[in-house]
Amino acid sequence: LDSGALSKIEAQLNELHPAEIANLLESLPLQNRRIVWELTNPELAGDILVEVNDEVRLGLIEHTDEDDLVAAVGSLDTDDLADIFEDLPKVVLHQVVRAMSNQDRRRLQSVMSYDEDSAGGLMNPDMVTIRPNVDLGVVLRYLRQRTELPANTDKLFVVDRDDRYLGILNISDLLTTNSKESVSNTMITDQKALLPTLSANEVALFFEDYNLVSAPVVDEDNRLLGRITVDDVVDVIRDEADRSLLSLAGLDEDDDMFAPVTRSAKRRAVWLGINLFTAFLAAWVIGIFAATIEQVVALAVLMPIVASMGGIAGSQTLMLVIRGIALNQIGTTNARWLLWKELAVGSLNGILWACVVAAITGFWFQSQSLGLLIGVALVINLIVAALAGATIPLTLKKMNIDPAIAGGVILTTVTDVIGFFSFLGLATVFLI
Amino acid sequence: LDSGALSKIEAQLNELHPAEIANLLESLPLQNRRIVWELTNPELAGDILVEVNDEVRLGLIEHTDEDDLVAAVGSLDTDDLADIFEDLPKVVLHQVVRAMSNQDRRRLQSVMSYDEDSAGGLMNPDMVTIRPNVDLGVVLRYLRQRTELPANTDKLFVVDRDDRYLGILNISDLLTTNSKESVSNTMITDQKALLPTLSANEVALFFEDYNLVSAPVVDEDNRLLGRITVDDVVDVIRDEADRSLLSLAGLDEDDDMFAPVTRSAKRRAVWLGINLFTAFLAAWVIGIFAATIEQVVALAVLMPIVASMGGIAGSQTLMLVIRGIALNQIGTTNARWLLWKELAVGSLNGILWACVVAAITGFWFQSQSLGLLIGVALVINLIVAALAGATIPLTLKKMNIDPAIAGGVILTTVTDVIGFFSFLGLATVFLI
Repeated sequence: LDSGALSKIEAQLNELHPAEIANLLESLPLQNRRIVWELTNPELAGDILVEVNDEVRLGLIEHTDEDDLVAAVGSLDTDDLADIFEDLPKVVLHQVVRAMSNQDRRRLQSVMSYDEDSAGGLMNPDMVTIRPNVDLGVVLRYLRQRTELPANTDKLFVVDRDDRYLGILNISDLLTTNSKESVSNTMITDQKALLPTLSANEVALFFEDYNLVSAPVVDEDNRLLGRITVDDVVDVIRDEADRSLLSLAGLDEDDDMFAPVTRSAKRRAVWLGINLFTAFLAAWVIGIFAATIEQVVALAVLMPIVASMGGIAGSQTLMLVIRGIALNQIGTTNARWLLWKELAVGSLNGILWACVVAAITGFWFQSQSLGLLIGVALVINLIVAALAGATIPLTLKKMNIDPAIAGGVILTTVTDVIGFFSFLGLATVFLI
Repeated sequence: LDSGALSKIEAQLNELHPAEIANLLESLPLQNRRIVWELTNPELAGDILVEVNDEVRLGLIEHTDEDDLVAAVGSLDTDDLADIFEDLPKVVLHQVVRAMSNQDRRRLQSVMSYDEDSAGGLMNPDMVTIRPNVDLGVVLRYLRQRTELPANTDKLFVVDRDDRYLGILNISDLLTTNSKESVSNTMITDQKALLPTLSANEVALFFEDYNLVSAPVVDEDNRLLGRITVDDVVDVIRDEADRSLLSLAGLDEDDDMFAPVTRSAKRRAVWLGINLFTAFLAAWVIGIFAATIEQVVALAVLMPIVASMGGIAGSQTLMLVIRGIALNQIGTTNARWLLWKELAVGSLNGILWACVVAAITGFWFQSQSLGLLIGVALVINLIVAALAGATIPLTLKKMNIDPAIAGGVILTTVTDVIGFFSFLGLATVFLI
């Protein structure tokens, strides 16, 4: 890249939105990422740091002067600052916090006292509140005095003297109602407020159900703490989706696609190690029947079929239940129904494919008894797979472990072990 | 359930939001679902039908009188009606369309002429448009004359006499700017409009990047067709997330969790059949080396380890690339970088775990050469897994096949076949 090309890139770059630059940075290998970062308009730097994922952010912060960081981060909204707070060097934090107003500092503390993945962590204290006893004309004049409204202001929050939440006034009602009408007559009082301890996932489901743009957050005394806006909820849904997909492979949604090779390798190694353990467990089960295999080598040829079909059938049930849990659609009553249904489906498919596999096997190895054996083993494994696929995620959920992370590994272990054990065990009893 | 309990349920039910009732219906087994559906307030029926997934909707429609359906569906917004249009019986459609105004009929046709998963399919023609040459006071009076605004109206769309899109007027600017100012001076002209052919996924990324509540859709002549609102975008993100998770197991996000057993079994059977084919392929590879296994039965014990480690390592790369493709973060230039990086990670982890497996194997079977063999096979399979994990989704994407559906099956086939072939092949050459 010569300097002519660089200044061309710089011009193009600074026409982009911070989120687009963040996207670009995430998709660049490390060296190019640093070059582009240095070309970026410093005014956008703060917003870009908020948008990139955790690991990319740490890398960028490492390559930025402290003074530039203070300037970049100082202009951020309180909730955004709270999101990246812990990634910033202490010296920078010290300067940023010192430069804040007392009110902003209190707000930052309030947001940071809650878990990042809760309503409290998502909320933004920046909002417009009004009193119930004024008329809409007063509200309109009050808004005109402000030069701008916080982003995504679709409603104003009505509070009493003690900041207790009373209801909302929709901007659309403000615009279409006679300005002589009072706030208390126009406001909506049945908009439920969220508690700061609600999980981010439940906040997202709430926004989805009610098609909201913003929603109030109140403490246990019904005092208004802040509001959550749909742009943050969209990020929650995307992050949860990425997380549940990537965690199936033991990955983290905040990992950098272009992390240094050694760092990536180290991270992946842990997951491979866990799986190696379960693979050795399966090997040990096979080892028990080594003498049987020595006599009938066809067993070695066929045994992966029983194990893999169990794994596939089990993962179908597993995915269905994981999704149901994420959508809050599975409780104790219907879990039982679901289990019965999955067992029935597993049995039906077990019998169907057992016939197919038995026929092919019988023909391939010219042995009806081998065909019968593998068929029975397949039925057993598919029923166990349905049972495991339904109960593992529900059990993990009860133990507060993310079923998407551990579910797949445990399921495969079960279907491998049962698959090998049933097939080789039956063969040892009936074939030898 | 006695009639007392039923009337209690009915009272509780009709305090819920349509989306919550939809959720409840989806999580109920078939019989209970019908009972609850009959108790539901008919006024909410239309919105509930829009919210439930395709298969549940078809079931509910089947159990509803035609007259009730006409009443339920007649009051829906155009974009919502378009979404469920094809699921409705022809008689009902005929009556609904006949009752529509000419304008609504034209709008419905326009929305339905686009793919459901495109900007055109997502858009809603219901919006407020204004002219550039009036002042804000006129706009305020115009809005007051309407008794209500369409949901999620955070901006008004400025168009010329021919309905050509000129820019947007944010409601917040309308509220904070002097009412003598003209629309043309206050409007924002750099808000990009979307083409109706843009895919739903790209619409979602656009909303995420720009934190939007609504965005205009224009045709190729820049004529305003409608707008997309964030509540529909949230549903797109959720659906895509569900789809990519469930399609890994060959499931469809529109399937009913409580579909009749035979229907579920039939659907799952297809996926099991595909996987059975690949399992037999792997078995056939093992079969080639049956004579070798007969001589060294330890090979049968150990071979699943090589195959399964390859599958795990490959799926890590696969998931990373599938996510990158979904986020539009992988192009031709960085795909090459990514491939090299994944190959390096695969090699490193291959060597690391080869040493571990070789040591354990050597100790278990008291054979250094067997340990060496499995180590080499493991390195080969992990490198092939990285290569396959990176290239399979990119190739599928180029062929316009969803990498999440087919990627996993193809990858497992590759890692199984290469795993068995390399381990047993090496053993045949060097051990016998």
